[in-house]
Amino acid sequence: MIDCTISKLSEFVGQEVRLSGWLYNKRSSGKIKFLMVRDGTGLVQVIMVRDELAEDIFSKFGDLTQESSIIVCGTVRAEPRSPGGFEIGLTNLEIVQIAEPYPITKKEHGVDFLHNNRHLWLRSSRQFAIMQIRNQVIFAIREFFHKRQFVLVDSPILTGSIGEEASTLFSTEYFKMGKAYLAQTGQLYIEAACMAFRNVFCFGPTFRAEKSDTRRHLTEFWMIEAEMAYCDSEGSMKLQEEMISYAVASVLENCGEHLVKLERDISKLEQIKTPFPRIDYGDAIKTLQEKGSKIQWGNDLGAEDETIISMMHDKPVFICNYPRAAKAFYMKENPDDPKTVLCSDLLGPEGYGEIIGGSQREDDYDKLLAKIKEEKLPVDAYEWYLDLRKYGSVPHSGYGLGIERTITWICGIKHIREAIPFPRMMTRLYP
Amino acid sequence: MIDCTISKLSEFVGQEVRLSGWLYNKRSSGKIKFLMVRDGTGLVQVIMVRDELAEDIFSKFGDLTQESSIIVCGTVRAEPRSPGGFEIGLTNLEIVQIAEPYPITKKEHGVDFLHNNRHLWLRSSRQFAIMQIRNQVIFAIREFFHKRQFVLVDSPILTGSIGEEASTLFSTEYFKMGKAYLAQTGQLYIEAACMAFRNVFCFGPTFRAEKSDTRRHLTEFWMIEAEMAYCDSEGSMKLQEEMISYAVASVLENCGEHLVKLERDISKLEQIKTPFPRIDYGDAIKTLQEKGSKIQWGNDLGAEDETIISMMHDKPVFICNYPRAAKAFYMKENPDDPKTVLCSDLLGPEGYGEIIGGSQREDDYDKLLAKIKEEKLPVDAYEWYLDLRKYGSVPHSGYGLGIERTITWICGIKHIREAIPFPRMMTRLYP
Repeated sequence: MIDCTISKLSEFVGQEVRLSGWLYNKRSSGKIKFLMVRDGTGLVQVIMVRDELAEDIFSKFGDLTQESSIIVCGTVRAEPRSPGGFEIGLTNLEIVQIAEPYPITKKEHGVDFLHNNRHLWLRSSRQFAIMQIRNQVIFAIREFFHKRQFVLVDSPILTGSIGEEASTLFSTEYFKMGKAYLAQTGQLYIEAACMAFRNVFCFGPTFRAEKSDTRRHLTEFWMIEAEMAYCDSEGSMKLQEEMISYAVASVLENCGEHLVKLERDISKLEQIKTPFPRIDYGDAIKTLQEKGSKIQWGNDLGAEDETIISMMHDKPVFICNYPRAAKAFYMKENPDDPKTVLCSDLLGPEGYGEIIGGSQREDDYDKLLAKIKEEKLPVDAYEWYLDLRKYGSVPHSGYGLGIERTITWICGIKHIREAIPFPRMMTRLYP
Repeated sequence: MIDCTISKLSEFVGQEVRLSGWLYNKRSSGKIKFLMVRDGTGLVQVIMVRDELAEDIFSKFGDLTQESSIIVCGTVRAEPRSPGGFEIGLTNLEIVQIAEPYPITKKEHGVDFLHNNRHLWLRSSRQFAIMQIRNQVIFAIREFFHKRQFVLVDSPILTGSIGEEASTLFSTEYFKMGKAYLAQTGQLYIEAACMAFRNVFCFGPTFRAEKSDTRRHLTEFWMIEAEMAYCDSEGSMKLQEEMISYAVASVLENCGEHLVKLERDISKLEQIKTPFPRIDYGDAIKTLQEKGSKIQWGNDLGAEDETIISMMHDKPVFICNYPRAAKAFYMKENPDDPKTVLCSDLLGPEGYGEIIGGSQREDDYDKLLAKIKEEKLPVDAYEWYLDLRKYGSVPHSGYGLGIERTITWICGIKHIREAIPFPRMMTRLYP
């Protein structure tokens, strides 16, 4: 008997195999019983025929409850009408455990109930599909960087320095050294690393203690950040559009069945190819005002503004060169217009809003120091960061992509909380 | 003029290229000057000949300090005597920034000084080599799992549940929900996930507030954890030895020059092939006692005991089936000897000690609940974990590999703090 998984059935047509998994559901039609079995690699229908089975095997059908763990033996048959294209004619059935009444059934469940049972909900077909796509997106992006000789330089989570807004930091006591903060970004660290390795990236969890309970916020999310020495803002945008296109192509190539399960409009994803449009911030403001937004030159784009721009395009779109006051201290002054900085936000299409923030970094020691003082940041904590502008400073640029926002868009789902296995939100720390 | 990087010089022999980088060092020999230039992809020697250059270019040599950022133009020549096999005959030199006197020089520096300057120290050739090997090990392991259809399921960092020892947890205030803890392991979460996806892994930072200031401890380290449904302890060990062998082979194939830089004995790594020896815990105790250790049956192996066993083998070695009392609550009772559990620690060779801990997990609801109560863990927080034993429980196994310990061994270095870009230790939170 061949031990097999559902994903490999095509290799064993006509042979008897042994599958271990769980009962997804079952139905009966007189002398024939149907088991839908999942094994973590796929779903397959298993047929039990009374006349072909001993009574002690056939009668086990009655005992089986949803999610019971079972081992089935049977012959693999090609069956175009079956999900997956194959079915199993059962010859033996072994029960590993009869499951207690399973809390997640076919009826509608509330969001809170499903999240309280996230450890079980992951077994459901939609959540299964989303996590498979997440797996593919993350691998594709790492592969993209590895192929381009980018060096992975993991940035620390526990840090004394502060990346963005101090008011939204989680902190913990750190031995006798006072407080450590959970990093909101690895950017400052990979800026150091890009002076050693030229092109680098980090990819880890980041934390924001933001009191925002929206469909686009998590308190813990994964971010991929890249940093390139001797690279300007336009060079960074080129890399971003190539990376996004690569990830989407990889999902289209490898996750077709999962996109279908999610009823994703695949034609929308097929349009995601370089180049992406670039819109100057000033032009974006004019467009938004024409569309009725109350935004003024100088403001950062709000979520609704992003949605307006995002809905106007079939591809992700860059908004470039924001006003200096609206953006972080480390962004490089635009030499053509010192009121603005050399930066870009990339908005996902179909109303999904910002998925990447990037910029050229201030590489002038004096300008950077002035900006740190202006924002009343602790100069001590940034001394090592300032060092990078003393010892062979070079033009450099980088960006950060929120991986869950990207997955939400690629999957075409509504809420970011389904794009991560165990979401953390203001009111959610369990399971 | 072709923009080029040092790693690609072989493609441009005889052509004029433009390289951007930093001055690693320089020397002078009368009318000929030598610049050693690094660009993050490699090192190359650049030759300046007085008779071939305008005075204003030639004279820039005198201004150049270590780590100054420069752009050089010149003709690529094959030169077997040069590091890397190529050299550049300089035609033009542009100074981006003259660096201030660089703190890290050729003289010996203290460990603390180097770590205070970790943001610069990464540019040094040994640190560069270690980080390149880290990059390769991590990519190889992700690739290993991806090829085997393991699904990446990122586990949360902020958690209410507690994986191992409560006394060594970092904690943070979490909105109005009380304390959240920084995860020491993702295991419990990927146990849930393996019931959905069969074979899963997670790979992220983990945290231990341990008061251990040794050459094998970090407070923040990266761990790869795998979990497999319908898999026993022996199946898990097989996967572990395949994964380790794959990673080592990938380093040998791709990082030869970096291993040479570190003066690593490559013949030791070439022996790392499956299968790895398996030693029963009881036999290990006897051996240790013969070698003079005071260890008694029932004790966990100390660092010195691990070193003794580790030094006796050319390959990593599994120590199997420890006493129940010495190991964590979630390990499955050994049916052949209920005083022990179905587990294994994998010790690196050459005295490097434990790199993996793994076990088959307790899949019986009643036994697991009894163990949780016996260890006085909060049953409430583990309710979702207990659920996995109610709804289709199956035999399952998994393991966790400390990536920095593994890199320390592969690189043949002495201290774990050089195996991570920005180490966090009891007394180290900067930079």
